[in-house]
Amino acid sequence: MGDNRTPVTVIGLGLMGQALAAAFLEAGHTTTVWNRSAGKAEQLVSQGAVQAATPADAVAASELVVVCLSTYDNMHDVIGSLGESLRGKVIVNLTSGSSDQGRETAAWAEKQGVEYLDGAIMITPPGIGTETAVLFYAGTQSVFEKYEPALKLLGGGTTYLGTDHGMPALYDVSLLGLMWGTLNSFLHGVAVVETAGVGAQQFLPWAHMWLEAIKMFTADYAAQIDAGDGKFPANDATLETHLAALKHLVHESEALGIDAELPKYSEALMERVISQGHAKNSYAAVLKAFRKPSE
Amino acid sequence: MGDNRTPVTVIGLGLMGQALAAAFLEAGHTTTVWNRSAGKAEQLVSQGAVQAATPADAVAASELVVVCLSTYDNMHDVIGSLGESLRGKVIVNLTSGSSDQGRETAAWAEKQGVEYLDGAIMITPPGIGTETAVLFYAGTQSVFEKYEPALKLLGGGTTYLGTDHGMPALYDVSLLGLMWGTLNSFLHGVAVVETAGVGAQQFLPWAHMWLEAIKMFTADYAAQIDAGDGKFPANDATLETHLAALKHLVHESEALGIDAELPKYSEALMERVISQGHAKNSYAAVLKAFRKPSE
Ligand SMILES: NC(=O)c1ccc[n+]([C@@H]2O[C@H](COP(=O)([O-])OP(=O)(O)OC[C@H]3O[C@@H](n4cnc5c(N)ncnc54)[C@H](OP(=O)(O)O)[C@@H]3O)[C@@H](O)[C@H]2O)c1
Ligand SMILES: NC(=O)c1ccc[n+]([C@@H]2O[C@H](COP(=O)([O-])OP(=O)(O)OC[C@H]3O[C@@H](n4cnc5c(N)ncnc54)[C@H](OP(=O)(O)O)[C@@H]3O)[C@@H](O)[C@H]2O)c1
Repeated sequence: MGDNRTPVTVIGLGLMGQALAAAFLEAGHTTTVWNRSAGKAEQLVSQGAVQAATPADAVAASELVVVCLSTYDNMHDVIGSLGESLRGKVIVNLTSGSSDQGRETAAWAEKQGVEYLDGAIMITPPGIGTETAVLFYAGTQSVFEKYEPALKLLGGGTTYLGTDHGMPALYDVSLLGLMWGTLNSFLHGVAVVETAGVGAQQFLPWAHMWLEAIKMFTADYAAQIDAGDGKFPANDATLETHLAALKHLVHESEALGIDAELPKYSEALMERVISQGHAKNSYAAVLKAFRKPSE
Repeated sequence: MGDNRTPVTVIGLGLMGQALAAAFLEAGHTTTVWNRSAGKAEQLVSQGAVQAATPADAVAASELVVVCLSTYDNMHDVIGSLGESLRGKVIVNLTSGSSDQGRETAAWAEKQGVEYLDGAIMITPPGIGTETAVLFYAGTQSVFEKYEPALKLLGGGTTYLGTDHGMPALYDVSLLGLMWGTLNSFLHGVAVVETAGVGAQQFLPWAHMWLEAIKMFTADYAAQIDAGDGKFPANDATLETHLAALKHLVHESEALGIDAELPKYSEALMERVISQGHAKNSYAAVLKAFRKPSE
């Protein structure tokens, strides 16, 4: 066909893998696909994808091999024993996992003579290919840069995090943790206000407005943390003040008969940090409760 | 003095009370102040405030009486026994508390022949008087409207929530809860990424970017909750998918030796909701774990 778009193989056609393959196809890349349950390739084939009969065939079809399966173990099951036929390939693994899995897979890849980029996707399948979709990558920089034009098709926020193959997973789980913490406390707030007939969408704009204030608090705390002097000045409110206010939420929850476990978790956390001498510090001092205890 | 600015009394000159009194003074209101520890009035007096010798004198000086003490009990200690001299006054209580305290104080005020507005301040003292400062009020609408020009001096986001005197506290604790949940998980994320040498300020822009995505998730969930049909469609990801990803955070935390209690709290929460039949629902179904169990 005489064009210079890198042929791509996509292994794993779950919800996410299908979205990835579709993005490559739409941009005119020759796209080979493989999935354990072959039926999931049907729609992609009708859009022009080539369905490989085996993982070995799939890997043979393209230099660039994108993998997106449920777990790292699945990946090792599917392509781990292909041996020689992997040599010279570039595997981009977008399967979610942990930093040790990313680093171990990189070590395995090096032994196989395979270039390896570890990645993490910060978006659901419908967001793949959009300008704001963030995908993190780590590995050899020149390899990332070579395939960046193709990878950028998956999201405008394609970001290289450096050579440490554990980094995408670290960013991934940290940001997801921020999501669960925020969502849990948002839903808890909805449970509180709905006792007085306030709807979730009525509460929503206040939550969004307040999240802007929270963003400013985090900016201050991040600077305090990076200062590294352990001072955590209470520019906004002391931990002691936070704890006093928190007790209202605990009381309110108990009085309303709704869940008090979430605020009590925060209460125990703050009390622990205060007992370590941080009563007059900012909320940033809570970081110390999360860090690995120093040996 | 021939102007029509309402004279104001401010009772309680802690960090917050001082900021409130200063805002009234700066706008040219005759401002009378009282504080248990008299010394805290000094600077305000030098700016033109009148210092009352007793709470009774302070109340006598103005129709509009703003109270900001540590607790509702303090307020009852300070003005609860003034009896007849309270009649005809308008008490605006900006002390933090719970909804039952707001409602009980309103009932007490009615018996005294006192107009009562309950309020909550969503900002730290330096923010008082700024355009974005949000203060919530509840009580008789006409009373709020009469004093709204004066109250607006405290913040551009002055907001009337209706006649239920418990409402400001409910909004207050719900939004503060959102703050603690967000801050805890942000700081936990910092603890995770710093193990790989990533600074808090390096992580910050990603956290902020991701909070924008989280805001979109909450908008979807709020609509699902208000729909009231208990369907919670997984437009983004199922609870089952969340739980699988969460297990990476639990594992990552344990492997890094940092706190795993926070992600384990979320894990237990999700497992509980999933065991109630919500594996294929959106994260909004977690609300059910917070609500008062139906009798
Ligand atoms: N969906 C999202 O919103 C999202 C967002 C960010 C990251 N991710 C990550 O992307 C990855 C895939 O997610 P998904 O949403 O596509 O999941 P999914 O729809 O459940 O698909 C799972 C994929 O893994 C394959 N698989 C599972 N076990 C296998 C095995 N033992 N051998 C071979 N193949 C196996 C499945 O093949 P079969 O079709 O044969 O079962 C399927 O292709 C996960 O790591 C997920 O965390 C997903
Ligand atoms: N600071 C904030 O960022 C903030 C934000 C929103 C809401 N608030 C709320 O505003 C209220 C006041 O906070 P603050 O920051 O001003 O606290 P603060 O600086 O600790 O001041 C507490 C005030 O309460 C008085 N007080 C305490 N116990 C008393 C008693 N038994 N009798 C008489 N007076 C008593 C204190 O008088 P003395 O000076 O004699 O001790 C002082 O005026 C609290 O409910 C707080 O939750 C504060």
